[in-house]
Amino acid sequence: MTRFFSNKYASLTPYTPGEQPKERKYIKLNTNESPFPPAPGAVAAAAEAAKHVQLYSDPECAVLTKAIAERMNVSPKEVICVNGSDEILNFAFMAFCDDKHPAAFADITYGFYPVFAQLNGVPYDIIPLKDDFSIDPADYIGLNRTIFIANPNAPTGLMLPLSDIERIVASNPDNIVVVDEAYVDFGAESAVSLIHRYDNLLVTQTFSKSRSLAGGRLGFGIACEALIRDLNTVRYSTNPYNVNSMTMAAGVAAMQDDDYMKRNCRIIMENRAYTTEGLKKLGFEVLPSMTNFVFARHPKVSGDTVYSALREKGILVRHFTLERIREFNRITIGTKEQMDALLEALKIITEVQA
Amino acid sequence: MTRFFSNKYASLTPYTPGEQPKERKYIKLNTNESPFPPAPGAVAAAAEAAKHVQLYSDPECAVLTKAIAERMNVSPKEVICVNGSDEILNFAFMAFCDDKHPAAFADITYGFYPVFAQLNGVPYDIIPLKDDFSIDPADYIGLNRTIFIANPNAPTGLMLPLSDIERIVASNPDNIVVVDEAYVDFGAESAVSLIHRYDNLLVTQTFSKSRSLAGGRLGFGIACEALIRDLNTVRYSTNPYNVNSMTMAAGVAAMQDDDYMKRNCRIIMENRAYTTEGLKKLGFEVLPSMTNFVFARHPKVSGDTVYSALREKGILVRHFTLERIREFNRITIGTKEQMDALLEALKIITEVQA
Repeated sequence: MTRFFSNKYASLTPYTPGEQPKERKYIKLNTNESPFPPAPGAVAAAAEAAKHVQLYSDPECAVLTKAIAERMNVSPKEVICVNGSDEILNFAFMAFCDDKHPAAFADITYGFYPVFAQLNGVPYDIIPLKDDFSIDPADYIGLNRTIFIANPNAPTGLMLPLSDIERIVASNPDNIVVVDEAYVDFGAESAVSLIHRYDNLLVTQTFSKSRSLAGGRLGFGIACEALIRDLNTVRYSTNPYNVNSMTMAAGVAAMQDDDYMKRNCRIIMENRAYTTEGLKKLGFEVLPSMTNFVFARHPKVSGDTVYSALREKGILVRHFTLERIREFNRITIGTKEQMDALLEALKIITEVQA
Repeated sequence: MTRFFSNKYASLTPYTPGEQPKERKYIKLNTNESPFPPAPGAVAAAAEAAKHVQLYSDPECAVLTKAIAERMNVSPKEVICVNGSDEILNFAFMAFCDDKHPAAFADITYGFYPVFAQLNGVPYDIIPLKDDFSIDPADYIGLNRTIFIANPNAPTGLMLPLSDIERIVASNPDNIVVVDEAYVDFGAESAVSLIHRYDNLLVTQTFSKSRSLAGGRLGFGIACEALIRDLNTVRYSTNPYNVNSMTMAAGVAAMQDDDYMKRNCRIIMENRAYTTEGLKKLGFEVLPSMTNFVFARHPKVSGDTVYSALREKGILVRHFTLERIREFNRITIGTKEQMDALLEALKIITEVQA
């Protein structure tokens, strides 16, 4: 840290993204990307947009916002587009958290929440998950905090039913509840339908997972019009041209090709069931996932050993060092072939190590 | 503003980007875009990258960083890539400004500086330009502020010689000096060569102007390694995947095709001389520009009238309402044909109105 660096960030620990190694070709099951390319229409639209990229992208993201609104059954005024859903989460910490509105989120959840809180100088409460790693909705009822809930949660994969989300939102009328639905398309229920009933609900989603646009950087938020206006005040004070025009074009096509997305999600869910069963046969405990990953631990082989042994065999998964989950690994669901390679490698690893 | 919106932004006035009208086809001379498409290699590279956009972009931007470093004669560790140079400017306000390090910038300069200051709760001093709209370097010597200088300046187009920049940097060893070189390729001298001598200098540049990638959103910062580390702490705490992979690929190709960029800049500079002469013949005062725009006022026709009359004729320029510059319009330099259309329209407007 240089002597010029503001003291307010003295203790800031940046987020660590999953590794993107370049030295060797891995089966990459560590960052929850889709194993499928983007919709053909999305690739073509991005390539066409590239030809005119000398012009600024539309700061209103008008066409994309309309496509999202149509698909989500909301008005375009209830949608904001962002440079990956990390951006909308940061905007929510900026806009809706401060000394008077501390944040609250689970101990085991998306690791960026505490970073955003620290970045914005926001005090925050950590709410431990239950012993089975599920969220206890009772912990969030009338909490009087700006609440961030990943649903389904990561890295656990567990889902809270919509009725519980609604109880939490309804019981905190003076605080924003952010429901981070990065993984919602893999079998969970979205809270988007609630935004017309609750003016304190912000739902965030991403094109990075089910819509195969992780490298395009595209996310969005859905909330009542007034909340979207607040978020746009922050956006227009940060980076009005936050979404580039190639991604914007790809996003429209990806949002309109719902069949392609649903087909891919169906395959992922099938492969998830297949992988879960295979892991259990090898002795793994696997949390019931509603996402495109599973979270698993072995009773006899440590999480760290599983991670390292897989890496040596050319398979990357995500291992976290947090005490409560250090025996687990988070494994992205890929193609059937990738899952077979994973299970085969784990068969050898568990036989040798256990 | 909703009751949830943090008080700290109560008086925040977002930046207003230049209009991007959709109702009619305009000759667009209002946002300083390039009239030329991106380098052919850049378009092809983006289209190729679109096919694999299901994978996250490289958070280290390794290939792009290397391409920029090679072209700029610095080490990759002295480069940071961002989602448009607005992002690096915001990072600089975040990292290097606070109550103890107030910001300072000109009264007439890039309109986003005061917005970033307000967004980050940073106190700032406004330093008036001289009567001729030039910067007086003496105002910045030993200023004891985090200094932001657009060089060449916008919307004036005026340039400060490198020797003046160096005096300012050298006289403020305990404060960061940010030199915003968005327009440097159109005839000005870059301060990049100074970064090895001064650990308090951050130079920012963009691919939006001379490299025809405005819609791709790509900028970068160059500074000593330690400053880049500070800025990366902020970047990894905000949006580690800030640059999308299509733009990253396009940026590499655009940076490597220097001949294409230089040829385009040469044409812009020729058209700038041509336009300046034409405007002067019509009675306009034109500030001597080192950018891809000119800043001009007419002694008899108000700035607002020029703007509106041009708009009616299908030509968009940028008009600001700030008292000192309200008689001016900022006019992007486009193709010869666009400039002829502009001059012809202004001939009629000045004859009718004057």
